[in-house]
Amino acid sequence: MAVSAKEVLSGDIQAAARLMRDLDDEIPSAHRTLKTLYRHTGRASILGITGAPGAGKSTLVDCLTEHLRREGKSVGIVAIDPTSPFSGGAILGDRIRMQKHTLDDGVFIKSLATRGHLGGLSKSTIDIVNVMDAMGKDVVIIETVGVGQDEVEIVKVAHTNLVLVVPGMGDDIQALKAGILEIADIFVVNKSDREGADRTKLELETMVGMNTYREGEWEPPVMATVAQTGAGVPELLSEVEKHWTFISREENLLRYRRERARVELLEILKKKLIDKAVDDLSRNKVLDHLLRDIANKTRDPYSIAEQVVNHRFDFPLGAEPGKGKGIRRGRA
Amino acid sequence: MAVSAKEVLSGDIQAAARLMRDLDDEIPSAHRTLKTLYRHTGRASILGITGAPGAGKSTLVDCLTEHLRREGKSVGIVAIDPTSPFSGGAILGDRIRMQKHTLDDGVFIKSLATRGHLGGLSKSTIDIVNVMDAMGKDVVIIETVGVGQDEVEIVKVAHTNLVLVVPGMGDDIQALKAGILEIADIFVVNKSDREGADRTKLELETMVGMNTYREGEWEPPVMATVAQTGAGVPELLSEVEKHWTFISREENLLRYRRERARVELLEILKKKLIDKAVDDLSRNKVLDHLLRDIANKTRDPYSIAEQVVNHRFDFPLGAEPGKGKGIRRGRA
Repeated sequence: MAVSAKEVLSGDIQAAARLMRDLDDEIPSAHRTLKTLYRHTGRASILGITGAPGAGKSTLVDCLTEHLRREGKSVGIVAIDPTSPFSGGAILGDRIRMQKHTLDDGVFIKSLATRGHLGGLSKSTIDIVNVMDAMGKDVVIIETVGVGQDEVEIVKVAHTNLVLVVPGMGDDIQALKAGILEIADIFVVNKSDREGADRTKLELETMVGMNTYREGEWEPPVMATVAQTGAGVPELLSEVEKHWTFISREENLLRYRRERARVELLEILKKKLIDKAVDDLSRNKVLDHLLRDIANKTRDPYSIAEQVVNHRFDFPLGAEPGKGKGIRRGRA
Repeated sequence: MAVSAKEVLSGDIQAAARLMRDLDDEIPSAHRTLKTLYRHTGRASILGITGAPGAGKSTLVDCLTEHLRREGKSVGIVAIDPTSPFSGGAILGDRIRMQKHTLDDGVFIKSLATRGHLGGLSKSTIDIVNVMDAMGKDVVIIETVGVGQDEVEIVKVAHTNLVLVVPGMGDDIQALKAGILEIADIFVVNKSDREGADRTKLELETMVGMNTYREGEWEPPVMATVAQTGAGVPELLSEVEKHWTFISREENLLRYRRERARVELLEILKKKLIDKAVDDLSRNKVLDHLLRDIANKTRDPYSIAEQVVNHRFDFPLGAEPGKGKGIRRGRA
């Protein structure tokens, strides 16, 4: 049975979970519901948490969630877990959290472990964040390893991005500047009871200090936490709240909303474009023939891609696609 | 001046480097050259090396390169270094390698540090691999952290994929099965002089053992190395050669070539489709208007994406795109 927008807007967890599953299964009615829900998004505060495997993301998310719950805020968590030899942590971490928060209606956790898809991870994340936002979650947390293009792009839908660093990892902080400064609103040296924590904190502060910030620009603070014990977490949350106040200023909010719109539109578009192209090419086994030609080096993938994009396409294979739709026969 | 296919095919390093730069700058003549070169690809053996930051990828690549050079083989190396707080290693590692191999004409190293692009990383990697292949490199090595969808997808153009694991990381190997088995042809426990190496090796072997392989299927061996000292590297290379022999069997080679063609075509297509759509939408500031509407919640990105994909598009903003090209006014 199709999930209605009304059910989700009322905060019905079962309905929201069903909608997410239907979206995964690409059920058309789910997409229609999502369109309706979109109008009701934009109320949640979105928090991105990025860190290498082993940086303690799950534990920190857990800790932050507990604090937010105590303040009476409802929380949605999206854990991005791209298939990889190195991303097992999120899955295990999730199970543990599930047990902990399973009886708490105020917490909604969704793990995304997409693989073999074409850019589907970003779109799925956007969908889930929007459902959680529309269902009235006060805070939505996106947790990601942040390595990989899609993952770096996706955290741009967050209001505030925390970048987790662990002591000792900082050996080559010099080399990391470009990427790290682009996404971090707040740096967090987690596991700060470990040796080298002070040095890592200092290096990050130096890095931030070397950047020139204009009047009215946000300068990322460097915070120290031990997520395992909860040390430093209240101070971190107070910095997060400062950033939320900062971003709520009219000029900042407009810029943020526009950037979120840009990431949303382009990521959704990217996925839909390639899906449509594969659909079109799969008709009458055109794709099969093309792959054979590429493998035999009688055609090159660059020229074929250009032809597809420009809707000029010859079918030397005698295969003619469905009339009027999709890739048309070229006239060039 | 445009780089000719002939120059690259003759193995001219300067020409190849210039072509790669021109491809980065999206110079049309470079794309034409690449199309011509494509016919001459498929001769190099492509080796993928995937491992988390700190797993010792660069050191191992270095070690393998030295061995291959001693056998008289020329080597191309593509180091994928997605912008991320955690990918600094490749940059530093590269500088060190550059110094070492800089006077050796038989080694060509290219670092890819793309960011902010839309799926451009995969396409760039494919381009570089094809240029190195066409210029006659015997072996092309793709080095990547392998976290993130694009990165997992891209190693599928390799004949043989090594997955690096370090001792101690193996705590949750149970959780990793799905992703790890999909891409690994050979597991490498690097830094195997460290505590826990035997256990990690055993866990990996158990994991492989639990999978059922059909007659004629490749079962990934688990090798142990200390890339720093070179221990275990000759044994690893001999396994790599075994896998190359395996994949050279007619039925395997056909399947591999088809899979490479698929990844190449779809990744190139993905990039070209989104670029074209952004170009089309940017005309007359249509994109700006759309982003404003999305930010204001008067439109939703899902419906807009659908309209773009189906080439039905209203311009309620009075903005009309260039005639005959791009997104057309809808008739629905």
